[in-house]
Amino acid sequence: MNHPYLEDTIAAIATPNGVGAISVIRISGSNAASVANKIFKGKVGLSAMKANSVHHGKIVNEQGEFIDDVLLTLFKHPNSYTGEDVVEISYHGSPLIGQKIMELLLKQEVRAAEPGEFTKRAFLNNKLDLAQAEAVIDIISSRTDASLRGARDQLDGLLSKNVTELRKSLLDTLSFLELELDFAEEELEFVAKEELLEKINNIINSIEGLLASYNFGKVIRDGVNVAIVGAPNAGKSSLLNYLLKESRAIVSSIPGTTRDIIREEMTYDGILFKLFDTAGLRASEDLIEREGIRRSNETIKNADLVIFLSDVEHGFDSAIFADLLNLVNRNKIIKVMNKIDLKKLHVNDDEIKISALTGEGISNLLKSMKFSATKNANYSEKSAIVSNVRHYNCLRRAKESLNKAANSINQKFSLEFISLDLRSTIDSLGEIIGTVTTDDVLNNIFSKFCIGK
Amino acid sequence: MNHPYLEDTIAAIATPNGVGAISVIRISGSNAASVANKIFKGKVGLSAMKANSVHHGKIVNEQGEFIDDVLLTLFKHPNSYTGEDVVEISYHGSPLIGQKIMELLLKQEVRAAEPGEFTKRAFLNNKLDLAQAEAVIDIISSRTDASLRGARDQLDGLLSKNVTELRKSLLDTLSFLELELDFAEEELEFVAKEELLEKINNIINSIEGLLASYNFGKVIRDGVNVAIVGAPNAGKSSLLNYLLKESRAIVSSIPGTTRDIIREEMTYDGILFKLFDTAGLRASEDLIEREGIRRSNETIKNADLVIFLSDVEHGFDSAIFADLLNLVNRNKIIKVMNKIDLKKLHVNDDEIKISALTGEGISNLLKSMKFSATKNANYSEKSAIVSNVRHYNCLRRAKESLNKAANSINQKFSLEFISLDLRSTIDSLGEIIGTVTTDDVLNNIFSKFCIGK
Repeated sequence: MNHPYLEDTIAAIATPNGVGAISVIRISGSNAASVANKIFKGKVGLSAMKANSVHHGKIVNEQGEFIDDVLLTLFKHPNSYTGEDVVEISYHGSPLIGQKIMELLLKQEVRAAEPGEFTKRAFLNNKLDLAQAEAVIDIISSRTDASLRGARDQLDGLLSKNVTELRKSLLDTLSFLELELDFAEEELEFVAKEELLEKINNIINSIEGLLASYNFGKVIRDGVNVAIVGAPNAGKSSLLNYLLKESRAIVSSIPGTTRDIIREEMTYDGILFKLFDTAGLRASEDLIEREGIRRSNETIKNADLVIFLSDVEHGFDSAIFADLLNLVNRNKIIKVMNKIDLKKLHVNDDEIKISALTGEGISNLLKSMKFSATKNANYSEKSAIVSNVRHYNCLRRAKESLNKAANSINQKFSLEFISLDLRSTIDSLGEIIGTVTTDDVLNNIFSKFCIGK
Repeated sequence: MNHPYLEDTIAAIATPNGVGAISVIRISGSNAASVANKIFKGKVGLSAMKANSVHHGKIVNEQGEFIDDVLLTLFKHPNSYTGEDVVEISYHGSPLIGQKIMELLLKQEVRAAEPGEFTKRAFLNNKLDLAQAEAVIDIISSRTDASLRGARDQLDGLLSKNVTELRKSLLDTLSFLELELDFAEEELEFVAKEELLEKINNIINSIEGLLASYNFGKVIRDGVNVAIVGAPNAGKSSLLNYLLKESRAIVSSIPGTTRDIIREEMTYDGILFKLFDTAGLRASEDLIEREGIRRSNETIKNADLVIFLSDVEHGFDSAIFADLLNLVNRNKIIKVMNKIDLKKLHVNDDEIKISALTGEGISNLLKSMKFSATKNANYSEKSAIVSNVRHYNCLRRAKESLNKAANSINQKFSLEFISLDLRSTIDSLGEIIGTVTTDDVLNNIFSKFCIGK
């Protein structure tokens, strides 16, 4: 890869928008020190500063007019976040001052950084591999302890280490295979085919382990979408309110992305649940109501979990339940019977008994929600978790080509076929950590970052 | 003053709230280094770090669990913002991580900082005087170049220098007067009374100069409240829209604090104008309408400037104008005649002719608005500007007691009286820069700061 833009020096405000005590502008690239030097007046110039030292001084414009007093930190390549020369300017947290300093920088040989461009440079300069770079955005947007820990592990290289080891093992094997191909006429066998098959099967097992962690990884990274479904009288809103009150940390209340659908967020035992209160399910003649139902159905189809709510007064609503089964798999549905404070009706064993009024049974429901959300999770504390759909897809492709390789061995196909499949597996694994990548992939990844990161 | 709390070590998130690339936690006090050392794992411990050096490392909790990798900067007293030992921790800009690091700190000998407490400590440790400390909050909340420059000058000590000089001159005089009092029996005259009177009058002149700058200072610091008044058909909304379109930088659109009153902001030539579109002025039988009129009248009374809008179709509305004069001084009113694109009616010379449709005359109106807003301003580029009502009141009291001193000299009163008045002036001036202050005054000033500053 050739990256001409790496020669540019870039700058951006790196702290969140708004008014605060401190804000920080970050500059990275070969001109970082020289452009900062033109606007900074301190006891010493930047050329006399040691790496990793902080200096108090003033930012002044071309007319020598004083803009702000700041702390300036100089990092010298390769010992910086990006691996390039980096200058950080910490100023009084006013958006107006930030804008003025940025203007002074952008008049020089500096351009405004694109979203994620600092981290992209860290990747291109081999400070982070691609999976680690992707973990940076996950860390910033983490909203539960579990998601933070998962992203943390990924930035630490837990997944990268796993993938690198699998890849290295395949590379070693491939080099022997290719040696064998080179000496094909001499009919030497450098790799015993049974050994090769065993090795491939072991790697398939490891990849399947990683793939199996995705279900849990996705849950901890993105949270669980829960649709609450039931007749209007079943007490959906009361349940929603009780759940929000009960959960230790209400993360936030998000205005519905679509009208008629209320979305709230809560965490339970480290898992983020996104709760959607849906309208009715039944077909209607009324146009507006029909639109509401269409939206409800969409929400239910996209849900990871559905709470189907009935109440002891009206009993289990089998008509609505039948409709529900057309939209969503049975194993995603938790049947809940509400209003058990009212009377002691018979409740089926597969229904969780609650009262959204007194709170009875709610803790059982929460446990059940967590169990359902994580039941397909194959996960141990020490192993890497795949939480990113891009990684998941790379692993699936790696597994497919390994299966093909195993098949070729069993069918005693020519070595060329096996070699090709192994090469393809190695490339798929390499895509995860970025040994093989394209500008499109990179742009897609880093465009999701915020500016300044 | 005795400040036992100065022994505490304090910590706070110093960057604006929200998600970003970088956020910063600031710790100040004698324990700053030791508490940070307990949660920071880097190549060296904090005790081995040089002042003003930056170190990469990890924040870990009591279980050794990795929270984030960070940059840590150590400042040693007295060379820091607060004059105490200060540690700044720059972490991935996630609110969750910020909360976790704060929790780890607050479990130790650290408490959460109060609003403005870092700057308050800078004042108590003599890093800034009080007027300079007050400038910090003005800098952060500056929204125009002019207000930023004013606050900048104040932080630089332009006002403090002026006040300190006046105060020192009075202190010198006072010491001679008191010497004379000590030797009263010997009837020695250490200070010639004519000289003293001249000196006092010179200082009164200087103080009057500062007082005169307040009008302009207030305008650049807080902006100008402009009420737009006129009959419903006069085109108030069109004018408002045109002004907003015309102004170089629309600062923002603020939701009305009271219903029925639209408030928009614009800057012209460095001055922030807050535009209020008011409803009618006339009394009404309708209860709801009456409430709207009450609010309009309140807005007009509080305005620094009133644009009174008539239009060429209906002519100058002398009835509304008469009502207006009951609410506001004539010299705050700018008469404007709108819709001059429609017909060429006679327009009085004291009316600014505009068309909110074509934009004709709008630039004249803007110039007139700036002229009216600043016409009472006595201000030269190099002199200090008083923009803070606290400073203004201190200066007024200083001037009053100086006038009393001058009067005592003229009336040949005893030296004790003159001495008392001079002492009182010195105290009033000292209050501005904080040589004399009370906890109440300090609390009042710093409670307006944000946390972390």
